[in-house]
Amino acid sequence: MQDIVSHNGTTAPEWIPEWIAVDWGTSNLRAWAMGPDGVLAEAVSDEGMGGLAREAFEPALRRLTGPWLQAGQVPVVACGMVGARQGWFEAPYRAVPCAPVAAGENVPVPQAGLAVQIVPGLMQAKPADVMRGEETQIAGALALHPGFDGVFCLPGTHSKWAGVSAGEVVSFQTFMTGEMFALLSRQSVLRHGMAGSGWDDAAFDQGVEEGLQRPERIAALLFRLRAEGLVAGLTADAARARLSGLLIGCELAAARPYWLGARVMLIGEAGLCGLYARALARQGLTATRLEARDCTIAGLAKAAGRMGDR
Amino acid sequence: MQDIVSHNGTTAPEWIPEWIAVDWGTSNLRAWAMGPDGVLAEAVSDEGMGGLAREAFEPALRRLTGPWLQAGQVPVVACGMVGARQGWFEAPYRAVPCAPVAAGENVPVPQAGLAVQIVPGLMQAKPADVMRGEETQIAGALALHPGFDGVFCLPGTHSKWAGVSAGEVVSFQTFMTGEMFALLSRQSVLRHGMAGSGWDDAAFDQGVEEGLQRPERIAALLFRLRAEGLVAGLTADAARARLSGLLIGCELAAARPYWLGARVMLIGEAGLCGLYARALARQGLTATRLEARDCTIAGLAKAAGRMGDR
Repeated sequence: MQDIVSHNGTTAPEWIPEWIAVDWGTSNLRAWAMGPDGVLAEAVSDEGMGGLAREAFEPALRRLTGPWLQAGQVPVVACGMVGARQGWFEAPYRAVPCAPVAAGENVPVPQAGLAVQIVPGLMQAKPADVMRGEETQIAGALALHPGFDGVFCLPGTHSKWAGVSAGEVVSFQTFMTGEMFALLSRQSVLRHGMAGSGWDDAAFDQGVEEGLQRPERIAALLFRLRAEGLVAGLTADAARARLSGLLIGCELAAARPYWLGARVMLIGEAGLCGLYARALARQGLTATRLEARDCTIAGLAKAAGRMGDR
Repeated sequence: MQDIVSHNGTTAPEWIPEWIAVDWGTSNLRAWAMGPDGVLAEAVSDEGMGGLAREAFEPALRRLTGPWLQAGQVPVVACGMVGARQGWFEAPYRAVPCAPVAAGENVPVPQAGLAVQIVPGLMQAKPADVMRGEETQIAGALALHPGFDGVFCLPGTHSKWAGVSAGEVVSFQTFMTGEMFALLSRQSVLRHGMAGSGWDDAAFDQGVEEGLQRPERIAALLFRLRAEGLVAGLTADAARARLSGLLIGCELAAARPYWLGARVMLIGEAGLCGLYARALARQGLTATRLEARDCTIAGLAKAAGRMGDR
């Protein structure tokens, strides 16, 4: 893989990409110009799917990748919420158990001036669950670690746990942990006691323990953060860290069937993965941490049929 | 108790109240003009504590109750968030175990042009917990049902469960159930699947069962509502009702030590208390439902020392 060349998108580069890899989530649009040896250039914008009407997707993609497209129909492969019902074009879910991506099953966007294919998300019928984007990261992780059997944890707004065996996603489960942290820390009564952005590792660890041991008490454990702020001097840093720990501990309690005795790989934002790794380490489990970006690019290459059977 | 006379506050009535009872919460201000036989008039405004700076409390109270005050220093007894640190004047908490209110321990608001006393809230040192306002409703319920030993459940934004014995609150616990319902149904990803205002009793019952049986899975059970909407046709009415059931079921699971085998009285908004009563009934428990308004007025009378030892 070449060094990454950030490109501002206003002037044409000297190379022509073989294809363009796109990760189009709710909040952001990321694109990579791909050459025979890997990434030629990278670009990002805040034109995520969440803020775009259907007719705004193609212009947003052209704004970000226009100079790479000069030579005409460079194929684009995109994963993420771009394929949701509220996205550019709905790509039906593939049902587990199945390989996380399948090059032949991408969904072409019709009536677009660009040759765009969308990677389908995965669904599970019972218990009902869905993912869009994470399947590509899982495919990339498997491409980078061939033969891995075990469990992937993808922390985030909606954390995913996925069991993988023989190259297939067997089952998965989503937790609203990240979204609950955002809502509770910024919009609930708890926000009064956790202003600022400091941190307290010991309070995080305490929260993880409480959440893991008494997850069924979560609605009471949450209010206790407020009460301890009022009557026991709990600091804002400790309150915020303990809230994070409580919610992650609660998730780990419910996800125990996934991680107990398993090989676990974490994929996601580095800081957040660090918290999950810390929480798991205290349960005696050493998780491997993968770079989300590497996994996404490798997964898009796999979906684009540009990685062979590797 | 006389019939309630709603009063618009612009003209002076023919009577003079003995005292004024005030329930001043985060969102609303409620006042009752009290005579020797009970309520003479009632008034309500949306000038809750949450929207008022310290110097705005007295004018807000005068706007609502001005005509009742004509004769001068009519004593006012107020409960609720008016006594919080961000309220009019901070009334220190009383520590449980203790009687829910004590007439001699109200806190006078200093430097006010009105004779206002604030009913202190209750605090519990360990596990840390606090209440402001509910203690007055509990005192009122005990005044209306002398000798009751058992458990009070006060559903709401922050639901409270309180064990009462020999006229004292022995312990209590707060759950963020109502606030979580509001945040999740209106501001999380789940809002997409629960537009409108319909209801589905069977879905509520299912949610209660799931929450009671697997409360530790709450973060996963929540996302399942979204997933079933996407892949299994879950309706908006069913999704909203099941979310309510899940959160109430989760609360009931953690509050089991309070209600199992106990006499339970519910105090709160009628619709919400109906849901809790329904959920408890399916666990074989018949809860008594009390009118929140009656309890508040009786509790304020108790705090005002105007109810004798009844």
